[in-house]
Amino acid sequence: MITLGDLYNVLSALVPLYFVIFLAYAAVRWWKLFTAEQCAGINRFVAMFAVPLLNFEFISRIDLSKMDLPFISADTLSKILVLVALFAWARMSPKGSLEWCITLFSLCTLPNTLLMGIPLLKAMYGDEQESLMTQVVVLQGMIWYTMLIFLYEYRAASNAIAQRFRESSVKSVCSEARNVGKEEAAHVVIACNSEDLGAQMGACSRDEDNKKAEKKLGYGEVGAAKKYVEKSTMPSGTIGFILRMVWYKLMKNPNFYASVGGLCWALASSRWNIKKPMIMENSVTILSNCALGVAMFSLGNFMALQPKFIACGNKMAAYGMFIRFIVGPAIMALASLVVGIGGKELKVSIIQAALPQAVVPFVFAREYDVHPEELSTVVMFGMIVSLPVTILYYVFLEL
Amino acid sequence: MITLGDLYNVLSALVPLYFVIFLAYAAVRWWKLFTAEQCAGINRFVAMFAVPLLNFEFISRIDLSKMDLPFISADTLSKILVLVALFAWARMSPKGSLEWCITLFSLCTLPNTLLMGIPLLKAMYGDEQESLMTQVVVLQGMIWYTMLIFLYEYRAASNAIAQRFRESSVKSVCSEARNVGKEEAAHVVIACNSEDLGAQMGACSRDEDNKKAEKKLGYGEVGAAKKYVEKSTMPSGTIGFILRMVWYKLMKNPNFYASVGGLCWALASSRWNIKKPMIMENSVTILSNCALGVAMFSLGNFMALQPKFIACGNKMAAYGMFIRFIVGPAIMALASLVVGIGGKELKVSIIQAALPQAVVPFVFAREYDVHPEELSTVVMFGMIVSLPVTILYYVFLEL
Repeated sequence: MITLGDLYNVLSALVPLYFVIFLAYAAVRWWKLFTAEQCAGINRFVAMFAVPLLNFEFISRIDLSKMDLPFISADTLSKILVLVALFAWARMSPKGSLEWCITLFSLCTLPNTLLMGIPLLKAMYGDEQESLMTQVVVLQGMIWYTMLIFLYEYRAASNAIAQRFRESSVKSVCSEARNVGKEEAAHVVIACNSEDLGAQMGACSRDEDNKKAEKKLGYGEVGAAKKYVEKSTMPSGTIGFILRMVWYKLMKNPNFYASVGGLCWALASSRWNIKKPMIMENSVTILSNCALGVAMFSLGNFMALQPKFIACGNKMAAYGMFIRFIVGPAIMALASLVVGIGGKELKVSIIQAALPQAVVPFVFAREYDVHPEELSTVVMFGMIVSLPVTILYYVFLEL
Repeated sequence: MITLGDLYNVLSALVPLYFVIFLAYAAVRWWKLFTAEQCAGINRFVAMFAVPLLNFEFISRIDLSKMDLPFISADTLSKILVLVALFAWARMSPKGSLEWCITLFSLCTLPNTLLMGIPLLKAMYGDEQESLMTQVVVLQGMIWYTMLIFLYEYRAASNAIAQRFRESSVKSVCSEARNVGKEEAAHVVIACNSEDLGAQMGACSRDEDNKKAEKKLGYGEVGAAKKYVEKSTMPSGTIGFILRMVWYKLMKNPNFYASVGGLCWALASSRWNIKKPMIMENSVTILSNCALGVAMFSLGNFMALQPKFIACGNKMAAYGMFIRFIVGPAIMALASLVVGIGGKELKVSIIQAALPQAVVPFVFAREYDVHPEELSTVVMFGMIVSLPVTILYYVFLEL
């Protein structure tokens, strides 16, 4: 049963987040305390230091022998289902892109289990849910955030390589494109993509160019032209080279070390029953304690830098909410039934999937500049609507 | 008595700080993750958000009726003594400057009582010292940090105004300076000061120019010329205008509101026996928890941006240490004797004054760009030497 006290506890966790978002928004929008570059620096601090240390803290504490295998399997299966469906879509549809695969994967499968899941699910189904939720949080940090970073780096590396090939063969592609009657689209795509690396300014102008092209030619045609150009310029056999680049980048990412190191520590500590010395514990928590606050600060900063308050537009925001609160739980329900989960655990798995959007995927999306406006909007407004949505799910599932 | 366990506790608080400094240093120096502007942004986040909220948290918890008046009086008297001496020096000596008044005040009177004082003094003289140390921390946050910001803003405002007057009368000053034979010095001073506002780059080149001039003319002569130019250009009666500018700036500084708000809450809560609701408590701690970690991160960033590892040079570092560990405690001993404190409390007051440098004054010095290299060096190396120094004091006082 949810009591008023439980609701107050959840609000006590939620309201401070909005307080921080408000401070950060005001600091940039009205008080002009931070430049855009400084905001990017604050976000990088979260992505590269606070989040990895927080992940390490959680992963290193898990006892692998006490995992709830059916529940974890359902969670993993649902994420794999979503990934397979998205990659199939990216391959087959002209609208498909790796960027949207990553963003839709985040929206569909990565809820805020740590902050919202633990208090809400405990209130709804009892204290024993905390351990279940912690397991989901650990897997999220260990496997799925690493996977997210892998996909972001894969995208960056393949863009960088495609870019190099494209530059050397722009002319031949143009003449080929003229032959198949897609000259204009190809021109736009090439011009846009040549500004691809490094600067955010470039990204903005590229987006505008793409939008113009989309208006003229229709979204599908631009997609087709893009694919056409990619096929014409990317020689086969580069995938190995791209993967090596990604590996090199992962080797430099603290999130990777946090996952591996956390897992090693968890295994060692349960095997030999050792505890972290206080010096080590404090060295981790001194920065991991900052993760949530500074991540919300970065979210507020980012919103203040956007021209519109709902940065991705109303339509995209609605789609995002639909995916987060309807599609995600539906796929999770399906996966749970496939694995054979029923009763209370089925309910828990569905409600856990219907929590608001996790904050870390926004931090990564901003760091890699892939649809941060979509994720920031869903995090920000998702938290507001999540409380009634989750309670509706609860009541509906109790019927 | 200090046990090995006590030392381990102190090391458990110290080592994580060096871990964060190392990460931040590496992030800028070797991994090139942050630009200089981004580092300044991270520091501003600490100065404008994390530190004020931490101060609010501490100040709002104090019970004014339970303050130890003699101890607090000695602490206050020592700080006033230092301020008076420094201002007298600034007025009378040609080497004196408001900048060095502020920096020397920080070095001499603001120890790291929160982080180092509480565990060390508890270990040395028993648990009842925690309340005494907390009172010092609260006054430091409420009165002395506000005072520090007042002085920094006063300096900024008077520089800005002097700058405006100077620009309009450079020519007449030059001809006057020629008459008194100080032409070259005046030229250098004017040229340097005309780059005074905004950019850090400007500050660097100004420092270099000043150093060149000092080499040519001797430190005293440049100081005299500076004073001469200031007198020639600053009309009397601007002090009221400067104070109004400072007030306006203070009214925009969150540290000011944290002090006033914290005090109001402390008074109200002890008067009507009310406690902070959890939503309010969490809204403060979500960012105040970050203060220490991100402040150390900013320190590491700053050190990595300096050309030398000991940013202010060996000589200045040694002077800084001398002031921190010898002059500061000596003045505190004097003030304690004047107030009439003896016995154990005298020892506590002296050792408390011999703790390493507080971190917040570095954050402010970097924000206002007044000798951050001096403060960063004393914080960084002061923490290393502080442990033997404090124990030496302890043993010496026990004789």
